[in-house]
Amino acid sequence: MHDRWINPAQEYQTGPRNLITDVPGVRVGHADVRRGGAQTGVTVLLPRPDIFENKLVAACHVINGFGKSTGLVQIEELGTLETPIALTNTLAVGTCWQALARRMVRDNPQLRSVNPVVMECNDSTLNDIRAFHVTGDMLDAASDGADVEFAQGAVGAGRGMICHGLSGGIGSASRVFKAGKQYTIGALVLTNHGLLRDLTVLGDPVGRRLAQEEVKQTDQGSVIVILATDVPVSTRNLKRICKRAVVGLGRSGARIGHGSGEIVLAFTTANTVPHQAPEAVFTARDVADAHMDTLFRAAIECVEEAVFNSLLYAEAVTGFEGRTVRAYRDACR
Amino acid sequence: MHDRWINPAQEYQTGPRNLITDVPGVRVGHADVRRGGAQTGVTVLLPRPDIFENKLVAACHVINGFGKSTGLVQIEELGTLETPIALTNTLAVGTCWQALARRMVRDNPQLRSVNPVVMECNDSTLNDIRAFHVTGDMLDAASDGADVEFAQGAVGAGRGMICHGLSGGIGSASRVFKAGKQYTIGALVLTNHGLLRDLTVLGDPVGRRLAQEEVKQTDQGSVIVILATDVPVSTRNLKRICKRAVVGLGRSGARIGHGSGEIVLAFTTANTVPHQAPEAVFTARDVADAHMDTLFRAAIECVEEAVFNSLLYAEAVTGFEGRTVRAYRDACR
Amino acid sequence: MHDRWINPAQEYQTGPRNLITDVPGVRVGHADVRRGGAQTGVTVLLPRPDIFENKLVAACHVINGFGKSTGLVQIEELGTLETPIALTNTLAVGTCWQALARRMVRDNPQLRSVNPVVMECNDSTLNDIRAFHVTGDMLDAASDGADVEFAQGAVGAGRGMICHGLSGGIGSASRVFKAGKQYTIGALVLTNHGLLRDLTVLGDPVGRRLAQEEVKQTDQGSVIVILATDVPVSTRNLKRICKRAVVGLGRSGARIGHGSGEIVLAFTTANTVPHQAPEAVFTARDVADAHMDTLFRAAIECVEEAVFNSLLYAEAVTGFEGRTVRAYRDACR
Amino acid sequence: MHDRWINPAQEYQTGPRNLITDVPGVRVGHADVRRGGAQTGVTVLLPRPDIFENKLVAACHVINGFGKSTGLVQIEELGTLETPIALTNTLAVGTCWQALARRMVRDNPQLRSVNPVVMECNDSTLNDIRAFHVTGDMLDAASDGADVEFAQGAVGAGRGMICHGLSGGIGSASRVFKAGKQYTIGALVLTNHGLLRDLTVLGDPVGRRLAQEEVKQTDQGSVIVILATDVPVSTRNLKRICKRAVVGLGRSGARIGHGSGEIVLAFTTANTVPHQAPEAVFTARDVADAHMDTLFRAAIECVEEAVFNSLLYAEAVTGFEGRTVRAYRDACR
Repeated sequence: MHDRWINPAQEYQTGPRNLITDVPGVRVGHADVRRGGAQTGVTVLLPRPDIFENKLVAACHVINGFGKSTGLVQIEELGTLETPIALTNTLAVGTCWQALARRMVRDNPQLRSVNPVVMECNDSTLNDIRAFHVTGDMLDAASDGADVEFAQGAVGAGRGMICHGLSGGIGSASRVFKAGKQYTIGALVLTNHGLLRDLTVLGDPVGRRLAQEEVKQTDQGSVIVILATDVPVSTRNLKRICKRAVVGLGRSGARIGHGSGEIVLAFTTANTVPHQAPEAVFTARDVADAHMDTLFRAAIECVEEAVFNSLLYAEAVTGFEGRTVRAYRDACR
Repeated sequence: MHDRWINPAQEYQTGPRNLITDVPGVRVGHADVRRGGAQTGVTVLLPRPDIFENKLVAACHVINGFGKSTGLVQIEELGTLETPIALTNTLAVGTCWQALARRMVRDNPQLRSVNPVVMECNDSTLNDIRAFHVTGDMLDAASDGADVEFAQGAVGAGRGMICHGLSGGIGSASRVFKAGKQYTIGALVLTNHGLLRDLTVLGDPVGRRLAQEEVKQTDQGSVIVILATDVPVSTRNLKRICKRAVVGLGRSGARIGHGSGEIVLAFTTANTVPHQAPEAVFTARDVADAHMDTLFRAAIECVEEAVFNSLLYAEAVTGFEGRTVRAYRDACR
Repeated sequence: MHDRWINPAQEYQTGPRNLITDVPGVRVGHADVRRGGAQTGVTVLLPRPDIFENKLVAACHVINGFGKSTGLVQIEELGTLETPIALTNTLAVGTCWQALARRMVRDNPQLRSVNPVVMECNDSTLNDIRAFHVTGDMLDAASDGADVEFAQGAVGAGRGMICHGLSGGIGSASRVFKAGKQYTIGALVLTNHGLLRDLTVLGDPVGRRLAQEEVKQTDQGSVIVILATDVPVSTRNLKRICKRAVVGLGRSGARIGHGSGEIVLAFTTANTVPHQAPEAVFTARDVADAHMDTLFRAAIECVEEAVFNSLLYAEAVTGFEGRTVRAYRDACR
Repeated sequence: MHDRWINPAQEYQTGPRNLITDVPGVRVGHADVRRGGAQTGVTVLLPRPDIFENKLVAACHVINGFGKSTGLVQIEELGTLETPIALTNTLAVGTCWQALARRMVRDNPQLRSVNPVVMECNDSTLNDIRAFHVTGDMLDAASDGADVEFAQGAVGAGRGMICHGLSGGIGSASRVFKAGKQYTIGALVLTNHGLLRDLTVLGDPVGRRLAQEEVKQTDQGSVIVILATDVPVSTRNLKRICKRAVVGLGRSGARIGHGSGEIVLAFTTANTVPHQAPEAVFTARDVADAHMDTLFRAAIECVEEAVFNSLLYAEAVTGFEGRTVRAYRDACR
């Protein structure tokens, strides 16, 4: 069926790795556990090494707030990201929050307050979530191992995730675009949402052909979308980019189910805010209105392909209580 | 091509008229002008005759706030609709606001404050918008002529609108669904958004085949979505329904362009709030979480088909400075 | 009692005129009608002459959305103000909207879309609001007569307004502050809110001493707050300034009554956004976090004094159905 | 000076305990550590024992989002509270989140997803916050010891907090009001905000008299406000109540400093939402608009007095690096 992403309407060139790490400075790492009913993990995205001292302009957008992500209140107010972003399962948010806070304290001697960003999806169909398998050590391992190359699919936080009834998890994609000069935007998604019958690949309703039986009967689970770019853009416009992610999700079949917490976070590496500003009035750069459609459309392309990649790379997973979720690759044969 | 709406994945039954007026009590009327460079008008949706005395529970959602709709601030705060809804062109908002206010004053002897809801799209490609062709009389005519049957396409407020590069305007659709007992939801859209190359009908990217030349080079224009239902639901859940409209828009090709003000308003006819409440504590009904996906999915189906109907019924229009916009029916032959 | 504003805790120096027009470029004009039951009007604030071509960075904040102000949706999305701001009575919003749109069309040959900002309070106790006494000519007169000196109290849009049970209306104040170099912030308020018994002047609960009988028994009416500054600041930080206005209102006795629509709008004259941006990426200036408290506290001082000035300058008004509202000056003797 | 709360303008009767626990079912417990540089703790509010199975209608409002509170995203979306509320220091949020999640898992065999609410202020002036003194056991101890009687001042999460330059922390107050029949509203605050020179007690600017030297030079720290009531009210109206809390804070001197995260959460014990709803359409009760001012004003009274009580009951605290913060009682002598 669709074993590659060949989009005849693609408008923007794919980045060299087709990963969010095509945005210079961004790294991603995973840690997970894969034994019996323990199928879960942590994925960490590091936007830049000294992010507490040089915060990045950021924004977030809640598509459906049935979720437990932390840190959004402060990003909404201040428009900055000051920690790596941790992805994990729903009941591991506090563990990752605390492990992230401890790393920030360790690395920043003056730090007395910090806003850890932890985002989550619920892997309790494949993972015995009530057993609390995620540890702070896994957050550390994922952080320490972060690199520009990283695995996609049922790995890290994506280990036990189910996307449109199939094995899902971590997906990524990137695009190169022009706004004056050339820039990159990338998406990282943690997919755990959607009904099989709704799955659409490049407009093809493949889910209808596959949907004899579905593991999940209701549209629960959530999807997290992280967007990174190196174009200098304000928090206001990053928020507007976040709001377009839903188009990419919708194109791949999402219906934003009641039980599906869908949350988007975007940051730029090109606008930094020092922890201690040297001057009362500073200058920041932003993208002019006439060029925003470029960013919007490139972001939509990234999100749609990243969701597909989370399926494409995910292997079948057997987990909690012996339940198995098929791989997209197998289902499509 | 697609000269009828035959959706093999349709989940909910179409209402008897396949119009928003399938929701009992709702009526729609049009008035327009169609001479030379004057191609514009007014569409009025009347939710119930005595709406000021018996306000309807309502909600709104701004997908992209590049628009001039009025009345949203109060709907957001109080969760009620207390006037008919007027649709018109961007520079006629004040005229319609004032004409609507005058009608409310005329019909309600005690009224000293009222929140007219006027929503708009910009028809300035086909209509000489700077000539202010819309009058208060047109608002009155549209209101007085409102009925359960009404025209779709390039009529009323939709007269000069352009949807995905083709003649657009007014579209509608309805669905019947079960939440305990049987209820109806309907959509009325004013379409003036999208690029031709993005137009998608039932997953088929027809726009790519048609997009040799496009009238509009940028994604400007706006789309207004009104959702009506007779299921008793709270303003909180109506807002959540509003937020799903974007999926229906996205499925038909919308990319939420920077210049495209996209705004959604929903109301229920089944929860009224009297202007003077007789008791300190009252009861209201709402839909349980487990049934919300039904409402979401039925709303998405309505919006997607309503956009299509705005195209299907719109004739070619020649207007300001001699510009002509093709009809979808003609383009698809 | 308090016939002057002597605040021993004042932290920032008052501007030369103690008016919002101390911010260079800002002008204010009034037009009103004062005969029998017709006690109403229009006030227009002009931020700069060519505001459509050079939009100003702006923000708004809804304290209580029981109000009909227009234009906020787009300000929220784009963060810019592109018209003068008109203040008027609740049922004259459409008239002023349309008159403002006509002026913008007249003055800008290329304009095909514009976002008029009209804000309102309800003067129906003193003014026969159902008779629609406000005309488009009054908007023109107020605009044409706008100047750096302007009257306060029961004048313009403030003609029939009631603040804490006394004659209210237009008030203003300004402060000079340092953020690197010296800047100015000013407030213009339209006061029509509050109970007499809650009125507080510089911490002194004068309302309790005056509140034998009250004209209004419920906390209805609304207050509009406009803040202008010449410090270069982002829409994000302007919104944060808007959110502090409620402290100034609360200090003078406001309790944000259910029926009191309370809305704040702020703009800076120092960050402009050209209608057609010449470059894809542009620079804007903003105030560093460490200096925001200065702006917050100066804004609070302005708002508190502006409310007081609306009372101090308002004469007694006799209007609709012979009702008279006392002047603060008379009441305090 | 003001060693009791005697408010000549008080409109609503104080509840029997003058604590948030006057709302039937609500209990509060503390655990803290008080040795050398470790001056911190946890306070837990339990709204009802079986809150996961019978969620309470709730709402929240962010006055200033410079804070790390968790759980707000889901409350905003679903309008329900499903866990106790934990208060703690800024760097202990993850620890308390996880401990709260573990208790919920322990007590609810079916639970696979939960939304722990943890709110925080920063006690790093008096507490060596980087040493992570808060443990999950403290969350358990505070929960297990929760009762209708509880201590105020420098106790539990309030142990190391500084309010207007003086020892602050936990404060509470309640009011009884009529809306048809008699109901109760109560406030619990965690105060760690404000400048000494701004402190106002019942309109008396006592801070100006005390402000020779201030421990904190900038307005940092935060304040958390929790409101509980037994009047049946919707999430929409609870949010409106939340928005009035800022008036109570402002009356006691708050200026909503840039660095002061100020967050409000409200719930009613009278509208429950079962985890599994038995019917598709259910009824809920709400308060009519005409009675909302009663709730607003009673809430404002509670918040203002609760802030005062946090000062009144707080003893002097000597903590991290030998710093001492005075007690209000001592300062006022």
